[in-house]
Amino acid sequence: MTSSTQLRAAIVGSTGYGGVELIRLLQSHPYVTVTSVISSSTAGTPIAEGFPHLNEICTDLLDGIDVELIRSKADVVFLATPNGISMKLAPDFLAAGLKVIDLSGDFRLKNGDTYQEWYKHEPAPSEWVERAVYGLAEVYGEQVVGSDFISNPGCFTTTSLLALYPAVKAGWIDPDSIIIDAKSGVSGAGRGASFGTHYSEINENFKAYKINKHQHIPEIEQVLSEAAGRSVITTFTTHLVPMTRGIMATSYATMTEKRKASEFVELYRQFYEGRSFVRIYDDGKWPATKFVYGSNYCDIGFSVDERTGRITIISVTDNLVKGAAGQAIQNLNLSMGWDETLGLQFTPVYP
Amino acid sequence: MTSSTQLRAAIVGSTGYGGVELIRLLQSHPYVTVTSVISSSTAGTPIAEGFPHLNEICTDLLDGIDVELIRSKADVVFLATPNGISMKLAPDFLAAGLKVIDLSGDFRLKNGDTYQEWYKHEPAPSEWVERAVYGLAEVYGEQVVGSDFISNPGCFTTTSLLALYPAVKAGWIDPDSIIIDAKSGVSGAGRGASFGTHYSEINENFKAYKINKHQHIPEIEQVLSEAAGRSVITTFTTHLVPMTRGIMATSYATMTEKRKASEFVELYRQFYEGRSFVRIYDDGKWPATKFVYGSNYCDIGFSVDERTGRITIISVTDNLVKGAAGQAIQNLNLSMGWDETLGLQFTPVYP
Amino acid sequence: MTSSTQLRAAIVGSTGYGGVELIRLLQSHPYVTVTSVISSSTAGTPIAEGFPHLNEICTDLLDGIDVELIRSKADVVFLATPNGISMKLAPDFLAAGLKVIDLSGDFRLKNGDTYQEWYKHEPAPSEWVERAVYGLAEVYGEQVVGSDFISNPGCFTTTSLLALYPAVKAGWIDPDSIIIDAKSGVSGAGRGASFGTHYSEINENFKAYKINKHQHIPEIEQVLSEAAGRSVITTFTTHLVPMTRGIMATSYATMTEKRKASEFVELYRQFYEGRSFVRIYDDGKWPATKFVYGSNYCDIGFSVDERTGRITIISVTDNLVKGAAGQAIQNLNLSMGWDETLGLQFTPVYP
Amino acid sequence: MTSSTQLRAAIVGSTGYGGVELIRLLQSHPYVTVTSVISSSTAGTPIAEGFPHLNEICTDLLDGIDVELIRSKADVVFLATPNGISMKLAPDFLAAGLKVIDLSGDFRLKNGDTYQEWYKHEPAPSEWVERAVYGLAEVYGEQVVGSDFISNPGCFTTTSLLALYPAVKAGWIDPDSIIIDAKSGVSGAGRGASFGTHYSEINENFKAYKINKHQHIPEIEQVLSEAAGRSVITTFTTHLVPMTRGIMATSYATMTEKRKASEFVELYRQFYEGRSFVRIYDDGKWPATKFVYGSNYCDIGFSVDERTGRITIISVTDNLVKGAAGQAIQNLNLSMGWDETLGLQFTPVYP
Repeated sequence: MTSSTQLRAAIVGSTGYGGVELIRLLQSHPYVTVTSVISSSTAGTPIAEGFPHLNEICTDLLDGIDVELIRSKADVVFLATPNGISMKLAPDFLAAGLKVIDLSGDFRLKNGDTYQEWYKHEPAPSEWVERAVYGLAEVYGEQVVGSDFISNPGCFTTTSLLALYPAVKAGWIDPDSIIIDAKSGVSGAGRGASFGTHYSEINENFKAYKINKHQHIPEIEQVLSEAAGRSVITTFTTHLVPMTRGIMATSYATMTEKRKASEFVELYRQFYEGRSFVRIYDDGKWPATKFVYGSNYCDIGFSVDERTGRITIISVTDNLVKGAAGQAIQNLNLSMGWDETLGLQFTPVYP
Repeated sequence: MTSSTQLRAAIVGSTGYGGVELIRLLQSHPYVTVTSVISSSTAGTPIAEGFPHLNEICTDLLDGIDVELIRSKADVVFLATPNGISMKLAPDFLAAGLKVIDLSGDFRLKNGDTYQEWYKHEPAPSEWVERAVYGLAEVYGEQVVGSDFISNPGCFTTTSLLALYPAVKAGWIDPDSIIIDAKSGVSGAGRGASFGTHYSEINENFKAYKINKHQHIPEIEQVLSEAAGRSVITTFTTHLVPMTRGIMATSYATMTEKRKASEFVELYRQFYEGRSFVRIYDDGKWPATKFVYGSNYCDIGFSVDERTGRITIISVTDNLVKGAAGQAIQNLNLSMGWDETLGLQFTPVYP
Repeated sequence: MTSSTQLRAAIVGSTGYGGVELIRLLQSHPYVTVTSVISSSTAGTPIAEGFPHLNEICTDLLDGIDVELIRSKADVVFLATPNGISMKLAPDFLAAGLKVIDLSGDFRLKNGDTYQEWYKHEPAPSEWVERAVYGLAEVYGEQVVGSDFISNPGCFTTTSLLALYPAVKAGWIDPDSIIIDAKSGVSGAGRGASFGTHYSEINENFKAYKINKHQHIPEIEQVLSEAAGRSVITTFTTHLVPMTRGIMATSYATMTEKRKASEFVELYRQFYEGRSFVRIYDDGKWPATKFVYGSNYCDIGFSVDERTGRITIISVTDNLVKGAAGQAIQNLNLSMGWDETLGLQFTPVYP
Repeated sequence: MTSSTQLRAAIVGSTGYGGVELIRLLQSHPYVTVTSVISSSTAGTPIAEGFPHLNEICTDLLDGIDVELIRSKADVVFLATPNGISMKLAPDFLAAGLKVIDLSGDFRLKNGDTYQEWYKHEPAPSEWVERAVYGLAEVYGEQVVGSDFISNPGCFTTTSLLALYPAVKAGWIDPDSIIIDAKSGVSGAGRGASFGTHYSEINENFKAYKINKHQHIPEIEQVLSEAAGRSVITTFTTHLVPMTRGIMATSYATMTEKRKASEFVELYRQFYEGRSFVRIYDDGKWPATKFVYGSNYCDIGFSVDERTGRITIISVTDNLVKGAAGQAIQNLNLSMGWDETLGLQFTPVYP
């Protein structure tokens, strides 16, 4: 594919952490060129002004949100916008014939009432929600192929579900027993300045937040219910770790019968066979968040406790890559019928 | 009490983090004077040489481990020594008529076989183990009064048990359902240099370790079994947080009947009534590790999920204070019949 | 002194980092009781609501700024208020007969034009500026004795001046050659949420700011000029370190004649003889910020380079203690004729 | 270039931070394939065992140091080995006809006596030292073209020299006035476990080390002397920042005549014209280390103080990339006559 046939990409919300990560990752994509970086708040200024790491790399001025303009410049639009905003933008872009990949939560929950209950505002119109394909790439990748409207999963959701889906689907764990204890770096909270993201409040501190209230809970339950073939509810807790990037989900469940960790290793390796971004660890080894830093990997390890009959599953991602921008690009690749690894084949940054 | 009647304290293992924290805290104790700081590896050098923060504060030379010498200089000995070492030292000090407060795991487990299984070496002689009082101050404080041999609880254990004991004792949660997801700062790993404590490996990283294998598991189970009146086993996971001080235990359990978080608040406030170092949060609020930084507090908060019938309990301590040196001093106070807060009445360091 | 004769203290700006640190430190002061914590923005709420580390320690409601009220409740007022605010409050409190200790920059610079140039707004009326004693405790402590209006020095200023004053006064270094390269933890930027204090922007980052523009420059020059007996200008740079507390000043100067570092050690030890909070390191040793963490110490070390004829002086403080709240209490002690160490005799928190 | 004509690379010292970074970066190089990863201590084991981030990316077993073996497998050898080791290995590899790029200090100093004075052991034989080309790519890149033996500069050296060379060469600053205050993340200390790299000692701490003693001092002076056309000595201080990656050099010098910062901007942009990895900031803007994180950039900004006649120059690099592995690859590219950016065109990781 030559430069003249490059796919042209626009990024709405380019000045958030998800948007600026899309810019970073797409620089390495062989078939995609970023042709418009968009920000409603700072349109008209060079993006490198607020993001000096992009000096001499991305010299574009920020565009405003103008559907006509974007249609003239782009073939695909990434919406790295807050919940409640994407639902207003996506229909227009879709109507204009653009492919849309939404990174917000607006089109993830199929049930509007559930959306309203957890997000505390009106859901998107149901016809658009139904049209969106839920892009958990390793699980629903086949549905993504050929799609022009993809709802990209949440960061906690992706990390939790890749760790739990195969075991629930296989009936090896009791879905009602699942407890997910999740921990995230601070970049997941976005780039907005607030007391809750103040360095002096986060550093040398570890805290829990939104206990039993996080909006990723219904998203996790929606997929686990599909896997289980019946309605599933879970316990899910989020914690804030004094680091910038990375998510770990420590998931606990009761096994439906006695099994060894090595059996789970085998099950998961079969489930994810042929997929490039899930790495299953040998029995007795568990991933740390640094092992996936800056990359699109999700690493998973297991520990079975014979005494209690429970399994503990450790899964990690980089919340801004596999948990956001990276999986969005993976979904773009899948939707275009390309190799899912295009533009995403880089080694984690270590140390 | 005048200076001439001060209790004289010796600290074995003064160059570990637990030992040096004892020095810091005892500087403020009105009735105790540190008369001997002891280190087998660097005896004869000034302690301030390796610990410049003690310049002009503690000008003592480090002593070697010499029972006669220590008997001549001290009334009480704190053993801030590794597992396996305390069991060799404590009997001699006790035989020499000294009060002994041991911060290691050597005398915590009443069952020698259990010790051997989890610590992977020979247990202490059972007569000494039986003689030791287990100093979880808010639970077994009455047994500590008058004792001359106190086994100080582990850091994870203290943090977990203060969060779970009242509910198990009251029969409000199912002991078999308990899952404890614990997170610790790095100082808990001790001062020894190793690849596992290398800054570049810890920073911007979050990892799980010793899953289902941590030696604090049987210690937790020993106490929970006492509370439940029957044998209890639990699931317990430890994680390493990129910070120096602080432990959080996120504990999950199924409630035996429907209750509100506010009922647990009330139960716990009654249970800890009159005790100075446990602070119970109002419903809807949870502690962060920074709220107890450098102090002897254990802060506890609750979240009840009506959907799942589970309660989530958040508890935090400073692992070097309430989880080690602070509780040891609290136990000394109790054993002497003093106010338990002596030398420990300081405000957490914030931010 | 019994409780009935305690000095009553009010703290204006109690919800900033300087104010809340005053509360922490004054809890340990034997002769002072905090009787009013004041915040214009959150008056009427319990201070512990925003600062849970103070639960059960400080149960006061926040007062508004009401001179009559404060006069009825307090003998001394600490102004931990932003530049430009103190100048409006101090005269009224002084007129009401209260002792005032101001932690802002408003009364530090004797020359109003200089204030305006560096602070970019109107200076305080000169009669009040003249009345304020500049409380660099180890240098101007004698002037503080008996004073009822003390202007507490800046954090960078204190750290830099304690390192340079004796050598300039002795004529051992060329004042015109002084270059100060300063580094601060983030708490120095205050508690206000801004993009510049966002965790994800600070963590794993090191940056310079306000190069040649920092408002502590004229304050440093004012004192160095006094020491030199002539006008001195300096080069001063500030950097932000990804940590919460601590300042280091690395000061460079050309020696006026060849000397060894040990001679500087001797000079400084003589200069600071009898003072409790300056610790001079032996030749070949230098302080790190952690050695003074949470304490009122300023630690200083030297390196002489025979090749270049320059001396490098390393000085460190905790910016919130010796650089703010601690020195303010030290000044209160001095002004009252008390031992300067009252309420400040605690060991640095390590690690 | 097809896979069959790829340049084959061996990396000695693959289990150090410099070596493992070479592996990361070379994965993206279009013309180079890593064919041997070498470690004397863990030969025979898979490299991914100690570095799980390389799982499924680099599945090689570690080789031992065997010149014959390496000659059979590789065309170029990177020596990411400690000082004193490279000098023993390089001659054999060169004699065997391999291209050698050495990342240690062994071949940087042309004067053997100077090496011995600063490195405290015997220098490499002078004939080998003379043969090595000093690979400060933007300054001596023309000498690197066609070379088969390149001595890669130090991390502090690179960061300092790129900031100072153009101004010294142009005669715009007085070389005798130069003071370099440098700050580094901890990965620069290597991967060896020691008390000095213990997380709890580094975190929330800032310290100076090797003041006036760092072995990069003579390396900096060697190049500045070449630029000045006469012997130059400098003052240089290193500090340890609680972060993993990144170096900042804050350089101070007296200008030889009055100039504006914008003139320096222009001078430097001309000097580095056509080079891809030096980015010069506009007047009034300065780089932070995060702006180059994980990339091969060196960013530089200026501040002129008219009052003192001094210029302050801020320069930053990622110590493991431009300060080590990245510049080594850049030198390989130059030596092969390739575009210097091959395999190095990636955006800094932010945040």
